[in-house]
Amino acid sequence: MRKNSKMKLDHIAIVVKDLGEAIETYSRKLGIALQSRQRVEPEGVEIAVMSLDNTHIELVQPLQDNSGVAKFLEKRGEGLHHICLEVENIELLIKALQASGFKLIDTKPRTGYKGNKAIFVHPSSTHGVLIEFYEKI
Amino acid sequence: MRKNSKMKLDHIAIVVKDLGEAIETYSRKLGIALQSRQRVEPEGVEIAVMSLDNTHIELVQPLQDNSGVAKFLEKRGEGLHHICLEVENIELLIKALQASGFKLIDTKPRTGYKGNKAIFVHPSSTHGVLIEFYEKI
Repeated sequence: MRKNSKMKLDHIAIVVKDLGEAIETYSRKLGIALQSRQRVEPEGVEIAVMSLDNTHIELVQPLQDNSGVAKFLEKRGEGLHHICLEVENIELLIKALQASGFKLIDTKPRTGYKGNKAIFVHPSSTHGVLIEFYEKI
Repeated sequence: MRKNSKMKLDHIAIVVKDLGEAIETYSRKLGIALQSRQRVEPEGVEIAVMSLDNTHIELVQPLQDNSGVAKFLEKRGEGLHHICLEVENIELLIKALQASGFKLIDTKPRTGYKGNKAIFVHPSSTHGVLIEFYEKI
């Protein structure tokens, strides 16, 4: 793929057991500003978006036992879950990723909570890192 | 702690088995520019720094079996290892973190590979996330 200096880290997602306690830690104790908090029903999670100077931290608490995030929490405990990179054109990216042999979780974009188009790439093809790519609308 | 809008994500660190293969994936296939590659002997690792538009990805391969990174790799496999936040004054930060009850791995700054002063906070007090804080010199 062409060197893409416009690939930007939108957020790092952290899975937590209790969103209220995690906000207390990251916002009140560490001083990172809480930007928004919302339930994302299709994903079965509640999230808190925190603003760093150049990117975001997304705290994610599962609301349902059968969600991917709940399974991650049960298996690995709280911690870093995925990173999300913003790209200019998700359709072109999907083709490039497929041509390079990446294992895609989504081959068509899903609609994110802000209406963005997003896909996830499986950690088995990215050295253990779940990567979300999204195109801002 | 005071809301600190100047807290900036310097990098996300990813532990990998083979640095050459990981550079191939992240640089050639994903198009993220390789900025530098170097051995950090005191830490027993070799790292590759990759530049995103607003932050960095640090790929880390252990060089010794007894390093913390080697133990992480053996226990959890390849994947997200820690995040590093840049702060303005590390000495003030250490006091504030201690006053807030965080469990610090370093209570005095260690010297990073670029001469920066850095400390690590234990994941048990940050919802499972190993966090490095550093002050740029």
